[in-house]
Amino acid sequence: MLLKKNIPIRYVFGKIKVEVLMVFVYALVVAVAYVNLHFTRISIPIAVPTMLGTILSLLLAFRSNQAYDRWWEARTLWGAIVNDSRTLTRQVLNFVDTPYNSVEALYFKEMFVKRQIAWCYSLGQSLRDLCPIKDVEKLLMPEQLANLQDYTNKPVGLMELHGEDLRRAYKEGWVNEYQQVELDRTLTRLVNAMGGCERIKKTVFPATYSLYTHLALLLFILLLPFGVINDFGVMMVPFVVAVASSFLLIEKMAIHLQDPFENKPTDTPVTSIAQTIDRDLKQMMREFKEAEIPKPQDHVARFYIL
Amino acid sequence: MLLKKNIPIRYVFGKIKVEVLMVFVYALVVAVAYVNLHFTRISIPIAVPTMLGTILSLLLAFRSNQAYDRWWEARTLWGAIVNDSRTLTRQVLNFVDTPYNSVEALYFKEMFVKRQIAWCYSLGQSLRDLCPIKDVEKLLMPEQLANLQDYTNKPVGLMELHGEDLRRAYKEGWVNEYQQVELDRTLTRLVNAMGGCERIKKTVFPATYSLYTHLALLLFILLLPFGVINDFGVMMVPFVVAVASSFLLIEKMAIHLQDPFENKPTDTPVTSIAQTIDRDLKQMMREFKEAEIPKPQDHVARFYIL
Amino acid sequence: MLLKKNIPIRYVFGKIKVEVLMVFVYALVVAVAYVNLHFTRISIPIAVPTMLGTILSLLLAFRSNQAYDRWWEARTLWGAIVNDSRTLTRQVLNFVDTPYNSVEALYFKEMFVKRQIAWCYSLGQSLRDLCPIKDVEKLLMPEQLANLQDYTNKPVGLMELHGEDLRRAYKEGWVNEYQQVELDRTLTRLVNAMGGCERIKKTVFPATYSLYTHLALLLFILLLPFGVINDFGVMMVPFVVAVASSFLLIEKMAIHLQDPFENKPTDTPVTSIAQTIDRDLKQMMREFKEAEIPKPQDHVARFYIL
Amino acid sequence: MLLKKNIPIRYVFGKIKVEVLMVFVYALVVAVAYVNLHFTRISIPIAVPTMLGTILSLLLAFRSNQAYDRWWEARTLWGAIVNDSRTLTRQVLNFVDTPYNSVEALYFKEMFVKRQIAWCYSLGQSLRDLCPIKDVEKLLMPEQLANLQDYTNKPVGLMELHGEDLRRAYKEGWVNEYQQVELDRTLTRLVNAMGGCERIKKTVFPATYSLYTHLALLLFILLLPFGVINDFGVMMVPFVVAVASSFLLIEKMAIHLQDPFENKPTDTPVTSIAQTIDRDLKQMMREFKEAEIPKPQDHVARFYIL
Amino acid sequence: MLLKKNIPIRYVFGKIKVEVLMVFVYALVVAVAYVNLHFTRISIPIAVPTMLGTILSLLLAFRSNQAYDRWWEARTLWGAIVNDSRTLTRQVLNFVDTPYNSVEALYFKEMFVKRQIAWCYSLGQSLRDLCPIKDVEKLLMPEQLANLQDYTNKPVGLMELHGEDLRRAYKEGWVNEYQQVELDRTLTRLVNAMGGCERIKKTVFPATYSLYTHLALLLFILLLPFGVINDFGVMMVPFVVAVASSFLLIEKMAIHLQDPFENKPTDTPVTSIAQTIDRDLKQMMREFKEAEIPKPQDHVARFYIL
Repeated sequence: MLLKKNIPIRYVFGKIKVEVLMVFVYALVVAVAYVNLHFTRISIPIAVPTMLGTILSLLLAFRSNQAYDRWWEARTLWGAIVNDSRTLTRQVLNFVDTPYNSVEALYFKEMFVKRQIAWCYSLGQSLRDLCPIKDVEKLLMPEQLANLQDYTNKPVGLMELHGEDLRRAYKEGWVNEYQQVELDRTLTRLVNAMGGCERIKKTVFPATYSLYTHLALLLFILLLPFGVINDFGVMMVPFVVAVASSFLLIEKMAIHLQDPFENKPTDTPVTSIAQTIDRDLKQMMREFKEAEIPKPQDHVARFYIL
Repeated sequence: MLLKKNIPIRYVFGKIKVEVLMVFVYALVVAVAYVNLHFTRISIPIAVPTMLGTILSLLLAFRSNQAYDRWWEARTLWGAIVNDSRTLTRQVLNFVDTPYNSVEALYFKEMFVKRQIAWCYSLGQSLRDLCPIKDVEKLLMPEQLANLQDYTNKPVGLMELHGEDLRRAYKEGWVNEYQQVELDRTLTRLVNAMGGCERIKKTVFPATYSLYTHLALLLFILLLPFGVINDFGVMMVPFVVAVASSFLLIEKMAIHLQDPFENKPTDTPVTSIAQTIDRDLKQMMREFKEAEIPKPQDHVARFYIL
Repeated sequence: MLLKKNIPIRYVFGKIKVEVLMVFVYALVVAVAYVNLHFTRISIPIAVPTMLGTILSLLLAFRSNQAYDRWWEARTLWGAIVNDSRTLTRQVLNFVDTPYNSVEALYFKEMFVKRQIAWCYSLGQSLRDLCPIKDVEKLLMPEQLANLQDYTNKPVGLMELHGEDLRRAYKEGWVNEYQQVELDRTLTRLVNAMGGCERIKKTVFPATYSLYTHLALLLFILLLPFGVINDFGVMMVPFVVAVASSFLLIEKMAIHLQDPFENKPTDTPVTSIAQTIDRDLKQMMREFKEAEIPKPQDHVARFYIL
Repeated sequence: MLLKKNIPIRYVFGKIKVEVLMVFVYALVVAVAYVNLHFTRISIPIAVPTMLGTILSLLLAFRSNQAYDRWWEARTLWGAIVNDSRTLTRQVLNFVDTPYNSVEALYFKEMFVKRQIAWCYSLGQSLRDLCPIKDVEKLLMPEQLANLQDYTNKPVGLMELHGEDLRRAYKEGWVNEYQQVELDRTLTRLVNAMGGCERIKKTVFPATYSLYTHLALLLFILLLPFGVINDFGVMMVPFVVAVASSFLLIEKMAIHLQDPFENKPTDTPVTSIAQTIDRDLKQMMREFKEAEIPKPQDHVARFYIL
Repeated sequence: MLLKKNIPIRYVFGKIKVEVLMVFVYALVVAVAYVNLHFTRISIPIAVPTMLGTILSLLLAFRSNQAYDRWWEARTLWGAIVNDSRTLTRQVLNFVDTPYNSVEALYFKEMFVKRQIAWCYSLGQSLRDLCPIKDVEKLLMPEQLANLQDYTNKPVGLMELHGEDLRRAYKEGWVNEYQQVELDRTLTRLVNAMGGCERIKKTVFPATYSLYTHLALLLFILLLPFGVINDFGVMMVPFVVAVASSFLLIEKMAIHLQDPFENKPTDTPVTSIAQTIDRDLKQMMREFKEAEIPKPQDHVARFYIL
């Protein structure tokens, strides 16, 4: 599967190259001091870094687990947005009905589905702290755009517009009372997914754990050369660099995974998912014009699909 | 992201400074006895603290996991409160309807939404054992406030008032029977979130685990200096302080996370979330006066957004 | 928070005092044999108890996790009972309606809510294998009590009475068809919570795990003194007692947590929760007499609120 | 609680007695070779089995966790079957209604509830690969039994009969449209529980993990005697047997737990649960004859209630 | 149970035979260098590979857990597809009704159920990147197949056809409004299961963890021979090969489990599950011709039922 190559090793190592270089220099200094300058008393028993390594592994396992859970929850929430967008469209297309399938109702359906697409783009943008109405203008009516001005949180505003249109459809008799309630429930699930994303975005991973893990890692790397110099000699340098890189990589990955909406290449691919929704929803509206299916755009290529 | 700086390192270390000082003095005494007074027989093999360290790591991992789960569940419950408050407002605004959109119905909607805001503030306050009707008076009618007197648990009373209003709306014909039931379901979800918060608040983490972890940590710190004095000499003191601080920090963080409604700076930010709800709900009632969107107040600044 | 002091250390240690005494005597005998009688060949390398200790830690972690999950699930189920009791009451009070708010309907509501309170008490009692209709007589009509005779499982009978009353209310026209179904759903959730509690009550923790953990712990304690006598000398005795007590405490706590309905002080506080429900539900029926709000009774004081 | 004694230690040890005997003989041979024949060079450092033991513990912890989760999920699914059988009965008894409470409707209710009991027995039997219509004949009409012939999966057929009867009740006007849908939802939940059990039954635990854990355990037991012979001498034999038995027991228990529907004594007690459902459902139909409440039968006594 | 033999050991070992051979040669070279050429200085203390082994075990445990969770979730989603396909069929057969049970309605039911079977096959095929309309032609009408041309994602198109047919049934009066909504909800659950599968398919396991685990494993295998050569001598070679094979097997299994829709023998058995659905659904339509129940086909035999 090509996607697996999407995060190049180079990108990952690029993130820790400064740290690895510092570890290399540090280990080299210790090795020279020991081997060439005969400071052999600096050797400590290997049990000390072993003890630290075990503790550190447990901490990194805890950290990785929680970070992975956040990342996977974010992905699952966007999966739910895909599902509920499809459901909403199926319901709008098949529930809304007028005696003679009037042009007004057709227009209503198209507007509703387009606004759902707009909501997906807008949510993705606002989670990344980007302009939340970019790419959204052409999917909305001017008066709806004007309405959005009143809202600090644009996706909340779009949902309220959904609700108001639903009310209109009910009052016009285009949907019956059960259908209104069922459509409203789909909106409720979309609101829940939106709230879940905002929760992950706004809740930082407890700072102390991050800090502590980092300090323990530092201490481990500082002591490791002294623990193995006696047995490895100069070969200690590549060994220390390899072990330290591994731990640093793990820590860095956890940091990336735990905040999946930070506009970084390792983000949850919200734009790409929104484009898939865009394509599917427009294909479901077969009776309407659909020349405008979006192609993956250049600014998305910067992101890797995890 | 600025929020990450919200819990200053200083605050965290401030919590353990006494313990760290005691560890420092203790390690120093051992070091002096060994190095200067030549009590070299007190050295023990490093395998003993290693064994204790491994056990302790597993215990702290268990403890941290459960504490983190409590904290994350509390945050998720407040996320659900955000979602369901938005849903309730969308439903009240769009379901409730009168033939000529009478002033009475408009007034009803405004009162309902304001009471929902009041409920959020009140729940946050009562979870923190603060006055549960502070900030709530101006959002409620005098007679509703009088009604609340009968309730030990104020948010339960506010929910009952919601239910009574819903009944009135149904009897007046402002909502149909499906809409009444659907609105009632949203109330049910809010009641579930409230009950979940109360459960976390009222259920202490099993005391034996806390106690045992603390005793094991104490034993570990007591033995650590003797285990490493032989290899480190005087350098043992900073090493012991660093390792002990790490473990103490982890334990302290678990204690803070496991009780997220204790009016401490590391709490779930209930007031801040309630203010976000306040803002969003008032913006959804665009047709009403909304000059009163709250600004983050001073007494909130004491809390850090986790 | 005062509740944290609810399980006194003394109670916890009281549970393991025999075992701790035996460990003390055993360690003392080994120490005397080694130090005074010079049986120095009995010393074994510390790596052996270390290996056992690591394995044991993993086993106890697994055990503690599963026991904690059972305990937390039991608590969550009772939290759900609190929530759904409040919901049921809100629905009964606000859904049930008669043209002139007849006395008969008022009486119906009061009887329904009181039976819900009775159900909570009865479920708590029967989960603890106590008389399931104690404290329940005064909340029920005599003919309802007679009906209950037919049931082996009393709470199941009370739920069936709820269902029959609901049918009567529907046939009388006091609730409409949607309200009947919605009230029935609340009953379904209560039935689910009841079934969950029964599942935890009736399903023992797999006996082999308990047995194995206990045997491994025994082996560890038997070998520990020989592993550390060489390095600690007489000081080995307090060290062994401290480590053994820790492991024994953890095991004991897991045993207590895994069976949360055994009428022990560390139980899920079902009576206390039922009294909270009692208070809240009676306060929600403001229009009725409510002099009888229960005070925490003496026989509850024996239980600690976890 | 008596149930805890239900899996006798003897049964558990019986499962591993061959393996334990082989370990005993093997360890004895090594001990004799070392102590009597002075092959002292075969001793290896204890660090080797320690490393293997740690790895093995982690593997067994993973294995035990997944096996326990499968077993607990199977138990939870049967708990859900208990809950939904009660709910279905409450709904059938209280929703189905005819103007004069005709004999036909009473007969309909009894047939429906008996078929639900039959479904529980039939599902339990077919999950264990036993005859799925044993004990079921007397609960069903002859023509229903004939209908079942068309189905490879009998419980699926019974559910379809439920659905058909529901349709008949709706067409006859015995239930209204909301009640039909609500009853259908209960059937949906029962279908979900059935599908969940089939999933656990048909999905084997990944074979490689089982295989690998077994090989690692073998390697560990093979090396252990050489690791401790130097320190323990002849006392090594009981030590090795004790440690090996512990690991073998854990592995065996995981194997039993991971397949909870294999007609073994450690199964999920499906027959016993079905009998509880039988009793409760018949007691709920108080107005009908109920002499036939089943007593626990002999063929159940072979199973232990976990 | 025969299924357990479905993944032959040979298949599993076949996947790692190259790696194992390389490890064997490498260990042999080290052994010859040490024993025959007396390069005895290359020996390192066993504590180094022990430390790496512990860390590696934790990493593999994390990896295995997440891979297992993905695999189990995929299996659970297909279990939900089984359940909801049965539910949908039960509902279509029993909800849809015409005054005289017209041929048109019978035809409608058969077409609906066949399209559901087609959806299951199509989803399975498209998840494996195979032709999504293979085996589907004979279950669909020509005009429906033509309709599918408009869709990039064929299962989404089939769901939309379901929705359109539901609308037709409602407009014709074959289902009432509650039944339409209830059937639509079953479609919603099927859409959610489909979306969940797509999420697992499209989201790769974070590449850094895979990479890091692989590097750590490599480092461990490289160092292991030097750590044990001193104690084992030539016997080191089989020991190293055995330990390395175990770790390699675990890693390989995790890689297989984490991507359960890759058209490999260890996949989630989507075709086999779809055939079970096919059989059950056709048996539920007893009144229709059902000669065409599929037999397990040859191209399925390549897959092992996990």
